[in-house]
Amino acid sequence: MSITVVGSIAYDAVKTPFGERERMLGGAAVHFALAASFFDRVHVVGPVGDDFGEAELQAMRDRDVDVTDIERVVGGKTFFWRGEYGWDLNSRETLDTQLGVFEGFAPKLSSQSRSSDVLFLANIQPDLQREVRAQLPAARFVALDSMNLWIDIARDSLIAAIESVDCVILNDAELRQLTGKPNLFSAAREVLTWGPRVIVAKQGEYGAALVTAECFFSLPAYPLETVVDPTGAGDTFAGGFVGYIAAHLGGGELSDELLRAAMAHGTALASFNVEEFGTERVVRLTDEEIAGRVAELREITSFSGAPTL
Amino acid sequence: MSITVVGSIAYDAVKTPFGERERMLGGAAVHFALAASFFDRVHVVGPVGDDFGEAELQAMRDRDVDVTDIERVVGGKTFFWRGEYGWDLNSRETLDTQLGVFEGFAPKLSSQSRSSDVLFLANIQPDLQREVRAQLPAARFVALDSMNLWIDIARDSLIAAIESVDCVILNDAELRQLTGKPNLFSAAREVLTWGPRVIVAKQGEYGAALVTAECFFSLPAYPLETVVDPTGAGDTFAGGFVGYIAAHLGGGELSDELLRAAMAHGTALASFNVEEFGTERVVRLTDEEIAGRVAELREITSFSGAPTL
Repeated sequence: MSITVVGSIAYDAVKTPFGERERMLGGAAVHFALAASFFDRVHVVGPVGDDFGEAELQAMRDRDVDVTDIERVVGGKTFFWRGEYGWDLNSRETLDTQLGVFEGFAPKLSSQSRSSDVLFLANIQPDLQREVRAQLPAARFVALDSMNLWIDIARDSLIAAIESVDCVILNDAELRQLTGKPNLFSAAREVLTWGPRVIVAKQGEYGAALVTAECFFSLPAYPLETVVDPTGAGDTFAGGFVGYIAAHLGGGELSDELLRAAMAHGTALASFNVEEFGTERVVRLTDEEIAGRVAELREITSFSGAPTL
Repeated sequence: MSITVVGSIAYDAVKTPFGERERMLGGAAVHFALAASFFDRVHVVGPVGDDFGEAELQAMRDRDVDVTDIERVVGGKTFFWRGEYGWDLNSRETLDTQLGVFEGFAPKLSSQSRSSDVLFLANIQPDLQREVRAQLPAARFVALDSMNLWIDIARDSLIAAIESVDCVILNDAELRQLTGKPNLFSAAREVLTWGPRVIVAKQGEYGAALVTAECFFSLPAYPLETVVDPTGAGDTFAGGFVGYIAAHLGGGELSDELLRAAMAHGTALASFNVEEFGTERVVRLTDEEIAGRVAELREITSFSGAPTL
């Protein structure tokens, strides 16, 4: 299989208690693609400006990511985001957002990108997500991310987009906002009735939960003594999760077992991502490191069948 | 073994989105004792006033909890707390606190209470915790809870109390506040250097984490579609956790395996507690229900060893 991702390709300026970067490679599609590249071939769809550097493209190519559908808009500027994190990294303030070439973005997919069996609609305007979704009618697994902004200003379109996918990956607060249900489990079950078969609730430092019609699964974040930069953690999680599914779905069903293992791989990828700024850690990650961390995650969540009473 | 707990015995007035109670049995020592009673004999130490009812004492006796060290203060009033929870139950407002007989409380332990091998110091003034701790010098396992108030106004005494126990059970925000470390894992490791061998970080709806010198273990909360009243969940968790340890420690060591199973039992007890108001659910719980929920917790946290790549 191969995976197509549509979403932002960006330069980020980030300040955390552990340092800062003035202009580093970022964006949801980039974080997703680098993570998913450990499992399968990824085609990235999204716009950049004249200012987007060769080195950044090469960082993706080095992970065998297909960048031919990254559209360079002449005279345009690459999406730019500046943010600063608080002392415990759980709060962040957006100081600047320059949409640049994203303002007039109309996704153009090559035949290769359209032939993927797996599609990830990263957080962009829901109308665009639906437009891309429609271009891969035969995809076997389609997942979607979004954000509070679209719930606020484009709720109907977002719900239509959600109705068209297999899997929704949102923060738990976004699931609550989207459904108006304060209980996370109820909120996830509500979204299941709209069409998707799989709901993933990202819970930041607490990990993530998976809800399907038959199954509930929860996994803590990997414990780190130092988190340097959480930027892109959610998209990196999604890359590991969706990437693992793409690599292992084959001709089979989306089993609970597969989804749980995918959660573990997403969690492992995200834990590496936050150890350094931006994409710095993930670009030099190895398969062995990922496998090692998945094994550690199993170890820190296992308890034995000691007799109860 | 038997377990001694010192802490509040209270009447609670609670309002949640699912209803309200004007005057129900509550208090940290009560919630702890009822939960721990499923595993071992519990002696409760704490004061009540003239207004404390026979039915409330009988509710504890029905669970074979020893209430002989519940001191009835003539002319005094039982500790009273009134609170209201927000729509998602994660925020609560204290509307009234009447210390009553707790104001002049000086713990008096019978020889039976002093002979327990396991002691739980529920959230009370740290000087009192130290005084009780000193009366059980031979206890094999001593655990302590506290709150932000004591970190603010009695930090030195609290740290002295922590230095004298085996296990600290705090909310994650309290661990951060106590150590000044924003990272939970670092905060827990810092407290380990003060003396305790075991740190439990309660994380509310997200579950709980266990940190020792050699081990990290994390367990999500049991997923519930309806949480009716979170009051006492933390103490009920502690009762299940400490109770399980008391029942299974025997002459052996405090192994990681034992601690992990204890976490699962604490989590199971807490999940029942929040299903109804106050102690209403736990008083009619059965051993089989607890065992069933522990098994479910294992199921919702397990993932198989599918090949990584």
